[in-house]
Amino acid sequence: MIIQKIESIKEFGGYLNRYTHQSEVCNTEMMFSVYLPPQAEKGKVPTLYWLSGLTCTDDNVRTKAGMQRYAAEQGMALVFPDTSPRGDDVADESERYDLGKGAGFYVNATQAPWSTHYQMYAYVTQELPALLEANLPLIPELRSISGHSMGGHGALICALKNPDTYQSVSAFSPICNPIKGDWGKGCFSAYLGDNEEEWKAYDAVALIKQGAKVSELFIDQGLADEFYDEKQLLPENLQVACDHADQKLTLRMQAGYDHSYHFIATFIGEHIAYHAKALAR
Amino acid sequence: MIIQKIESIKEFGGYLNRYTHQSEVCNTEMMFSVYLPPQAEKGKVPTLYWLSGLTCTDDNVRTKAGMQRYAAEQGMALVFPDTSPRGDDVADESERYDLGKGAGFYVNATQAPWSTHYQMYAYVTQELPALLEANLPLIPELRSISGHSMGGHGALICALKNPDTYQSVSAFSPICNPIKGDWGKGCFSAYLGDNEEEWKAYDAVALIKQGAKVSELFIDQGLADEFYDEKQLLPENLQVACDHADQKLTLRMQAGYDHSYHFIATFIGEHIAYHAKALAR
Repeated sequence: MIIQKIESIKEFGGYLNRYTHQSEVCNTEMMFSVYLPPQAEKGKVPTLYWLSGLTCTDDNVRTKAGMQRYAAEQGMALVFPDTSPRGDDVADESERYDLGKGAGFYVNATQAPWSTHYQMYAYVTQELPALLEANLPLIPELRSISGHSMGGHGALICALKNPDTYQSVSAFSPICNPIKGDWGKGCFSAYLGDNEEEWKAYDAVALIKQGAKVSELFIDQGLADEFYDEKQLLPENLQVACDHADQKLTLRMQAGYDHSYHFIATFIGEHIAYHAKALAR
Repeated sequence: MIIQKIESIKEFGGYLNRYTHQSEVCNTEMMFSVYLPPQAEKGKVPTLYWLSGLTCTDDNVRTKAGMQRYAAEQGMALVFPDTSPRGDDVADESERYDLGKGAGFYVNATQAPWSTHYQMYAYVTQELPALLEANLPLIPELRSISGHSMGGHGALICALKNPDTYQSVSAFSPICNPIKGDWGKGCFSAYLGDNEEEWKAYDAVALIKQGAKVSELFIDQGLADEFYDEKQLLPENLQVACDHADQKLTLRMQAGYDHSYHFIATFIGEHIAYHAKALAR
């Protein structure tokens, strides 16, 4: 497995690099970015994985969230995967932003035509970390995970399904209960088929009901978020599930904030500090 | 004169607002953004004007530079004007990124067809500040100015031509001597005509040679900047002019940094602190 560096931009004393590689699980070329803080020039550093939302590539968060500043202060690498496989031979619904390219939803698709390439769960939890820890100055198996919206959903399920893999998990405006929202239902029925029991393997609320547990879930949700109003995100369902299962949840409802990267930028410093503390243990 | 708020996004406890208004000097509707820090809810605050570079609107800097965090800490408003007039009736060279829309170059055009709308110098130094200080919680006439590339040029000339108007001036990768670079020559010949003597009124190096003076020019320039290599920016000419004129210049050549917003993000905190100190005097 080889990664090819196609861009390197100096930022906050470290380097924001972009790579391509041939993904075995997604069966196509994939692109991703990694921010290596200045500390990575002298030794290996811990890693925060960031999963992005619908329509995003690796570029949105690295340009808009202002995370690199805090990662440089903390000596933490940031990994920004793409949100789906790309390329001309990859299945898509080009007129829809919420299915196909840019909407991989961090599941392993089982249904044609999606199953050929849409294996984002295996990609972000297994193939990509193994590849990066073999090729970049990252401390093996010292990982935390966060994300936004569809990527917040991804962060929650990756941690809940792999409680020993991630030191900590946080999310901004996550899709907490995708099997109950229109975005989630649309993607899960396409990627996973009509049997809704299969969907529960990728739904944070369902996983908690089934007994999945992590030390804490740390979530920021804006109260002026249109998708919260539309019941796409459903943090209230997560709250109920966590209460019943005795799962620790820190859910901060932030008055006045919307669904945008301006919201993420406002609170990302607190999330980075939270993960840095967990990664230093 | 009336401004209309068309968007308001909460960020770092303050508000990133977008407005439109009918500009008298540009003779068309203009759009701009203002970040009002949380301190502006309790009283008037000082203002930093930021002039953006070629191809930008008001949106690039507000999304990519990470300035709002520091402005919220310092209690400083940020004003992000557009880089040219827009609209269907505004002259343009649609196949060029470096002339017409997105490339106003912060001059008052004297040549047809540009002179009808391209009055960006009067707009950013006079009309816009008067409008904003009458309508927003900004301390009248307490202003500093900064910018990037074409906007760095704009910041330098605005301060040099109005030394009592701005408390401080800084720039990232500014076009220091536009009458000697291809971008500047292309725009100045179109907007100002063939008489190169007229161009000197909007050239930082020429203004310093003519005796213009400010307390200090504070500039960051990346050494991996392709436009520096192409001799579009010419900070070396500014250095010579400042040395001869006994103009204080702090020119930091930053190894490894390029022309992008990742460079701006890295050092913008130091620029904001610099301006905050000047505005607090």
